Amino acid sequence: MATLEDLGVSAFINILGAFVFLILFAVLRIQPVNDRVYFPKLYLAGKRQHDHSARSAVRRFVNLNVCTYITFLSWVPGALRMTENELVAHAGLDSAVYLRIYTLGLKIFLPIAALALLVLIPVNVSGGTLLGLRKEVVFSNIDKLSISNVNPGSNRFFIHLLMAYVFTFWVCFMLYKEYSNVAFMRLHFLASQKRRADQFTVIVRNIPRISSHSTSETVDEFFRRNHPDHYLGQQPVYNANRYAKLVKKKERLQNWLDYYQLKFERHPEKRPTRRTGCFGFCGREVDQIDYYRARISELERKMASERQKVLNDPKAIMPVSFVTFDSRWGAAVCAQTQQSKNPTQWLTDWAPEPRDVYWQNLAIPFFSLSIRRFLISVAVFALVFFYMIPITFVQSLANLEGLEKVAPFLKPVIEVNVVKSFLQGFLPGLALKIFLYILPTVLMIMSKVEGYVSLSSLERRTASKYYYFMLVNVFLGSIIAGTAFEQLYYFLHQPPTQIPRTIGVGIPMKATFFMTYIMVDGWAGIANEILRVKPLVIYHLKNMFIVKTERDRERAMDPGSIGLGENLPSLQLYFLLGLVYAVVTPLLLPFIIIFFAFAFLVYRHQIINVYNQEYESAAAFWPQVHSRIIASLLISHVTLFGLMSTKKAAYSTPLLIFLPLLTIWFHKYCKSRFEPAFRKYPLEEAMEKDNMEHASEPNLNLKSFLANAYLHPIFHLFEEPAKEEESQETVEVRIDKAQQQQQQQHHHQEETHVRSSSQYHHEESHFRSTHETHYHHESHVSRSTQYHEGIHVRSDTDSPSPPHFIYHYDIQP
Amino acid sequence: MATLEDLGVSAFINILGAFVFLILFAVLRIQPVNDRVYFPKLYLAGKRQHDHSARSAVRRFVNLNVCTYITFLSWVPGALRMTENELVAHAGLDSAVYLRIYTLGLKIFLPIAALALLVLIPVNVSGGTLLGLRKEVVFSNIDKLSISNVNPGSNRFFIHLLMAYVFTFWVCFMLYKEYSNVAFMRLHFLASQKRRADQFTVIVRNIPRISSHSTSETVDEFFRRNHPDHYLGQQPVYNANRYAKLVKKKERLQNWLDYYQLKFERHPEKRPTRRTGCFGFCGREVDQIDYYRARISELERKMASERQKVLNDPKAIMPVSFVTFDSRWGAAVCAQTQQSKNPTQWLTDWAPEPRDVYWQNLAIPFFSLSIRRFLISVAVFALVFFYMIPITFVQSLANLEGLEKVAPFLKPVIEVNVVKSFLQGFLPGLALKIFLYILPTVLMIMSKVEGYVSLSSLERRTASKYYYFMLVNVFLGSIIAGTAFEQLYYFLHQPPTQIPRTIGVGIPMKATFFMTYIMVDGWAGIANEILRVKPLVIYHLKNMFIVKTERDRERAMDPGSIGLGENLPSLQLYFLLGLVYAVVTPLLLPFIIIFFAFAFLVYRHQIINVYNQEYESAAAFWPQVHSRIIASLLISHVTLFGLMSTKKAAYSTPLLIFLPLLTIWFHKYCKSRFEPAFRKYPLEEAMEKDNMEHASEPNLNLKSFLANAYLHPIFHLFEEPAKEEESQETVEVRIDKAQQQQQQQHHHQEETHVRSSSQYHHEESHFRSTHETHYHHESHVSRSTQYHEGIHVRSDTDSPSPPHFIYHYDIQP
Repeated sequence: MATLEDLGVSAFINILGAFVFLILFAVLRIQPVNDRVYFPKLYLAGKRQHDHSARSAVRRFVNLNVCTYITFLSWVPGALRMTENELVAHAGLDSAVYLRIYTLGLKIFLPIAALALLVLIPVNVSGGTLLGLRKEVVFSNIDKLSISNVNPGSNRFFIHLLMAYVFTFWVCFMLYKEYSNVAFMRLHFLASQKRRADQFTVIVRNIPRISSHSTSETVDEFFRRNHPDHYLGQQPVYNANRYAKLVKKKERLQNWLDYYQLKFERHPEKRPTRRTGCFGFCGREVDQIDYYRARISELERKMASERQKVLNDPKAIMPVSFVTFDSRWGAAVCAQTQQSKNPTQWLTDWAPEPRDVYWQNLAIPFFSLSIRRFLISVAVFALVFFYMIPITFVQSLANLEGLEKVAPFLKPVIEVNVVKSFLQGFLPGLALKIFLYILPTVLMIMSKVEGYVSLSSLERRTASKYYYFMLVNVFLGSIIAGTAFEQLYYFLHQPPTQIPRTIGVGIPMKATFFMTYIMVDGWAGIANEILRVKPLVIYHLKNMFIVKTERDRERAMDPGSIGLGENLPSLQLYFLLGLVYAVVTPLLLPFIIIFFAFAFLVYRHQIINVYNQEYESAAAFWPQVHSRIIASLLISHVTLFGLMSTKKAAYSTPLLIFLPLLTIWFHKYCKSRFEPAFRKYPLEEAMEKDNMEHASEPNLNLKSFLANAYLHPIFHLFEEPAKEEESQETVEVRIDKAQQQQQQQHHHQEETHVRSSSQYHHEESHFRSTHETHYHHESHVSRSTQYHEGIHVRSDTDSPSPPHFIYHYDIQP
Repeated sequence: MATLEDLGVSAFINILGAFVFLILFAVLRIQPVNDRVYFPKLYLAGKRQHDHSARSAVRRFVNLNVCTYITFLSWVPGALRMTENELVAHAGLDSAVYLRIYTLGLKIFLPIAALALLVLIPVNVSGGTLLGLRKEVVFSNIDKLSISNVNPGSNRFFIHLLMAYVFTFWVCFMLYKEYSNVAFMRLHFLASQKRRADQFTVIVRNIPRISSHSTSETVDEFFRRNHPDHYLGQQPVYNANRYAKLVKKKERLQNWLDYYQLKFERHPEKRPTRRTGCFGFCGREVDQIDYYRARISELERKMASERQKVLNDPKAIMPVSFVTFDSRWGAAVCAQTQQSKNPTQWLTDWAPEPRDVYWQNLAIPFFSLSIRRFLISVAVFALVFFYMIPITFVQSLANLEGLEKVAPFLKPVIEVNVVKSFLQGFLPGLALKIFLYILPTVLMIMSKVEGYVSLSSLERRTASKYYYFMLVNVFLGSIIAGTAFEQLYYFLHQPPTQIPRTIGVGIPMKATFFMTYIMVDGWAGIANEILRVKPLVIYHLKNMFIVKTERDRERAMDPGSIGLGENLPSLQLYFLLGLVYAVVTPLLLPFIIIFFAFAFLVYRHQIINVYNQEYESAAAFWPQVHSRIIASLLISHVTLFGLMSTKKAAYSTPLLIFLPLLTIWFHKYCKSRFEPAFRKYPLEEAMEKDNMEHASEPNLNLKSFLANAYLHPIFHLFEEPAKEEESQETVEVRIDKAQQQQQQQHHHQEETHVRSSSQYHHEESHFRSTHETHYHHESHVSRSTQYHEGIHVRSDTDSPSPPHFIYHYDIQP
């Protein structure tokens, strides 16, 4: 049991650590060389561009302005300055609502903490048997401030019960207000949006195969018959996985070609050559530029034929289609109704927005889907409860004697002293660390296997799986010592009434552990988040070794996204801790409040300057957040129940039984009151928007607007190349090449270059100067607000120039 | 532990009892005097009418044809002769599908029983330790045939496991086939139906109040805006509860008037008189006929003013409306989509057919609804687990000493010997019996409080509540001795793994109890069902004492309905018993098979000849039947699991764990594959029907067809009286009176009357002869196929003459 002093020391160390991180961040962020690490979102949004003005070369890498070093917290007001509406416009509704989780945490826990500290701490303190010795005792043990200090059977527990009621009502009240706010924001956001393809589009899955018809004909006929007044057209989905591979390969070759051409231009005296065989060590020597040109043109022929094959072969059309309607009303009707007599065919749902579609999962048939979901839920259960079994197995292998027995041929290597000590010290923990590190990825893969068709739903599913893992292995695992497997055994062999008791007894004892957990995982994690150590290191490493062309640097700049899959569950864990400890050990609440406040600032800053959300789901994750907080409330009731029963406060049973019942009712009510806003699209709303549009743009050609919105992104790349060459908005690889050569000749003589030590670095800076304008423009269109931009252009010109998703889909993990 | 001989005796007694009942039934059913007890459905369907031909008076009461007495099972071929399609046409899809539950039982249990008896019985018998003494031992104890006889740890359990898998697969296979059949039948039924008002109508609840508008205007405006192409009109719902009371009162008075008029006509010498005060014992003497005429006319004035008030007062219009569309497509779209931004307003759903509407629940607002459902679910939980508490309390009062203490003033009465012995012998059991007798009614009231708006959903909800009660109190209550309250305590204080063990150990021991239960509750219950003892007695009692007019006799004829609320749960209990015992004690299966076969015959006969289903829900109860059988499968797996763990068959655990998992997956698959057919109406189907109708009847005036379909039934009675007087199809009380007087003068002299002992009986026979044709016609229109008939008439004449629901709504429990 830690004393208050221990805790104070721990807090001091963590605060100091966070402080150091913040100062480091303050220094690093104002160095221009780190600009793309700390402000990628601004680059993508076009709000920040490299100024290649007459600044000195050094200044382009290091900030020499002393004034800017002094105000090391200057980013805070900047992060707070943006209003919520601006934030929605800048980073989307998802990000803005994500931040509201933190403010919700503050709104919930600030009053609760105030009340708990004012009322419960005195009650707890004075409830002890050592009342006379209060001063000395209190400060030596944190338990004296918690409910543990109250004598069993004391009437003081009435105050705790009362507080439990007050806290529950307060949480429910705040949850209700927030749900209502978010639902309103969502509807408002959807209503105030510009015309978007997904408002008119419905995804149709499991289209039955009719022998004499092609899929497109079947779809056409079906919707012409059953939605005669509103059906507009359809966009078939092609199975373009092979084609996508070719595109990727060509891009890689193109990069090498760029690299060698550049090299040649800087050293015109020597054409770069290579040998054809054995990784370039033997074989005939060929000219690199010619070699890559030849391979690219060969690949282009292949691609063209593959493309024709995909577009013309009826077998390449998958039994899925994006069906468009001439009004939002028609789409809303189709998305919400059952189409076919066989409810497993013609499944309709709202189409996710084009960049949110997860194309690989579109063609999974219904039967397979139901098996997949079932198997994955079994697998998640196994993962949550039995993950320690393979890890223990690996750890037992890491036992050196065991390893030698299993693989005797390794004996000579292991016997080396250095290797031995390394293995003995490092291996056992390694397996667990690797597992925890790859866990989110594993869960994401599981979600993909489940067959969800949008990135947003995949992230939500991952989040919920991760939450179960954390709930069992972090929360319960810390309270009931032992692995989850042992817990499961324990739960099955104990009477159900015993379980809340065990947890209830364990809860107050683990308060200090969770306080430390919040400091280490929460505070330090947030400081690490703002410093972006990993992206910082990786960016500079890439810059030094991998980056060959400007396009590579574009990729090296990794804005990332909020990462709902990992962040939502840990946030929900903090809510759980706060609610469970609010009555038991109120001293934990300030730690959580500090976390929420600090994290709010940091994430607000990051959302404004760094993250680039890959999709916009219009806060579709909120119902999950809401129900997890409700679940936390219920868990807190059960633990309080168990705790009270060990405290001989028998009268509490009937009083406590109403709390969970009321909470469940509240949840049901909220669910029916607000959840439809996140699942369905009301016809009233659709009709309103339709009418407004008809009034303002009576001659709108919707068909051409929607024509290629849902084409597989890979096809946009070479779609109508003639058209694209004219357009300045859409930049394409081949056009890059042409322009590039022009520009190179142009800029080459004018610019002054600082020669840095590394040749690659040199090339990088050179490249940046020559291709800046061009590439920034490209990145602007293709990565960040590409989608909205695309629509602007199209609605203005009435000719569909498809948006570019290629980076987006390449980058996705 | 009962021996086989005990069981044989019990079976013999029950079979004998059933046989006696059947012979009684065979004799009673061919007596003309019982015609209205045993063939009410045929009367209602117009397939049977009283032949008032020249038969002798005695023959009209007693069947003297000896031949008909010999073939006492002659009703069986009659019950089987009808094909399923005829059955659907005759009694509706609900009844036909209800019978399929019995055939499903036979299809499931016949092969299982054959396999179990052939394979498991030999395995069990030879598995005993007393192998040498087999012959003597086996026939002395039923347990020797069950799994209890197999030695712990024996490898023979593999055979039981294999059988469990085979049985589960077979049950799932049959369930799948049956679900698919029923879903097809439902869609086919809906598709082949004639035009019905509910196909075009959507019920809209929770219409928001807008201050400057009336509800009707609000509805009109909203749907004109959001469904401009398909909205046709609306039928507001009036709060007519007070008016309904007046109507009832008037009817009662009318009956008395009829009675006195008749009396006067038979004894013209003496006008019936009564005194005005004190139950007719004192006060001024008045003429009865004049008195009732005066009161009726006074009441009619009241009704007229009340009617005007209801129809004109905007406050009498409830925030509910039946909205009609010009096509099935439009209604399907509106029913399945969300209308308003606030998902608790403008809730739309398919309208139940008019006779299925439960009018009283229409106006419950959303918030109240969510509270009601929550409270009722808590109440049902309390009822299931704690119902013994009040009953024990009542029983403790029935303890005479206690009663004397509580109410000392009763002492002299109690001390009387007769009273004392009566109380001591009768009272303790009485409370429980009364409770069990009124339980279905209590559950129905609870369902009504929950706020469901159709009779069919009320019955389904009652059935599921009753099922929980039976599951806990009959199934678990028999296995784990003690009240449900004690069980709950036991469950909470035992480890979860212990519970299946306890049940598993208890299961084989209770086999004989459940066999006897099946015989007493099942076999005897069915025999009682066909004899209709209660309706028979009540009908004749009413005929003797209450029936004053022919209309009273109409009411005394009580066809009843299947009673899904009570019958579904007990059927589901039999499925549960069969599945649980299939592996454990296969000898129970023949009892269940006999029950299903016998019940199938009896219910088929009753559905053809007796029951008159009050509504048609198109087999909406099937998903419940399906999921209850799945639940039974899961329970059987858990009990087997527990049993195996006590039998030291540890290897069975991993093998058994897949069974429930597979079953759950199967259930989920079936749910998504078939359940939408019972909840939604596919647009494809709607469009098809619409197009067919447009082609065949291009000039259909749908608006007038739908105009008054959903008027509160109470208004139909006095709706447009002028029109009704012309029409021969719709008979109305006042018209009765006029025609009655004519007919009386006509028939009075012609007919020969048999004077029976009772004056009432005499009147009854007299009445029957004079008013037969007229009233049969009325009953035909107003009770049985009234609804379809009503539509026929209207679609032919294009003028809406509203159907009559008054009897229907009066009779409902």
